[in-house]
Order: sequence, then C-alpha cells, then structure tokens
Amino acid sequence: MKKINLYKTLDSIDEYWSQKVLGKANGSMFKVAKGIGEINWHKHEDQDEVFIVLKGAITIRFKEDYDDVLLEKGDMLVVPKGVEHSPVADQDVELLVVGKNITSNKQGGKPDWSYQ
Amino acid sequence: MKKINLYKTLDSIDEYWSQKVLGKANGSMFKVAKGIGEINWHKHEDQDEVFIVLKGAITIRFKEDYDDVLLEKGDMLVVPKGVEHSPVADQDVELLVVGKNITSNKQGGKPDWSYQ
Repeated sequence: MKKINLYKTLDSIDEYWSQKVLGKANGSMFKVAKGIGEINWHKHEDQDEVFIVLKGAITIRFKEDYDDVLLEKGDMLVVPKGVEHSPVADQDVELLVVGKNITSNKQGGKPDWSYQ
Repeated sequence: MKKINLYKTLDSIDEYWSQKVLGKANGSMFKVAKGIGEINWHKHEDQDEVFIVLKGAITIRFKEDYDDVLLEKGDMLVVPKGVEHSPVADQDVELLVVGKNITSNKQGGKPDWSYQ
C-alpha cells in the first residue's frame, strides 16, 4: 500500500495543463495539474470532472446556461458530463482533478502553447 | 453550478468521524471528516476508500498483509475494497474521503464514543 503526496507530485510537473496521476479508485482517476491562462472550450461526454483548488484561483467559464464560477483555495466544483466549459487562471493555479481518465489533451482543451 | 469549500464544510462539522458530503461525480461521493483517536477495525466490501490529508496526520493500520501507512498533509492513500484497516490519529486530523457512499457509521468502524 503506497501513499503519494499531492504537493510533491505537483512539484515534479514541468508542463502547464498536464495532469499527473496520483491513483485510481472506484473507476475514478485522481490527478494533479498546474495551469495558467486559458483552456480551450470543450466538454467531456464520458465523465463528470471534479476540480479542487489546492493553490491559487481559477474561473470555470460556462456558456449561457450557467454562470461562471470562481474557485479559490479549498473550493470544489463538479462539472457534469456534457457541459461545455473553459477554465481560465490569471495566475498560477494548482488543482486536484478527478475524472475517469486523463483529460489534459487537445480534446480536453489543452492549449497548443502549453505543450513542451 | 455550485461550488463548495472543503475548509468551510469542515468548520461546520461538530462530530468526530462524521463525514459531510461535498458532492458526487462518476459514482463517487466526495466527503470531508475530522477525527481523533481510533476507528475500529473494518473493511468495505463494496468500495475502495481514498484518504487525502488536509490537516494533521493519521496512520492507516493494516493487518499482517500490509505495513501501516502514516499520512501527513497532502498525502493520499487508496485502501482497496475488502482490505481490513483501522485509522488512528494522535491529534486532530482533517480529511478528504472519497468512496461510493458514507462510511462513517458502525459498520465503517465509527467508535461509540464519537456519536453525539
């Protein structure tokens, strides 16, 4: 049985909007990511996406059906599957992200500039 | 779409080893709890249990198949379903717990003294 530390894992990440896997449980994947700037508009048809802010702040923007939500340290938001969203962070943000698999890819809105 | 804050939710808890629900996603329930002392030995046949330490420290004790694991701030551990365990905290600990449902009950090892 092996523990893993969220903050140490975040320290090992050198690419923005790139999720690193902490572990899996009950069909969900637990991941950390750091980011700044905008994630492109996208939705996940196969999974809800949970955001928990560990450091900094991020706004999850939505289309007309929902108001934008500003998330600060300790805030959690569940973005239901199928709901279009675009996260944006003015400054560095560190996140715990929980979903069914890795979503930090083109389909998940990862911006071109963020790839190393 | 409504955010919820982990720390504010923890502040509203007035019973040890009593989980408060933050939200649900992909069949998992996200909960916070605070504790001190020992949880009775138990296992969950229906679900893995994820512990993430938000404050303090807790040792997850196991029977002979696994070594005990000390979890400190930012540490995460997945206890697989069916594995007997007994968490113990020398001092106050605050946790994010993720599983399929509420496990802070007699069957989940919640000690008699902790009920208000």
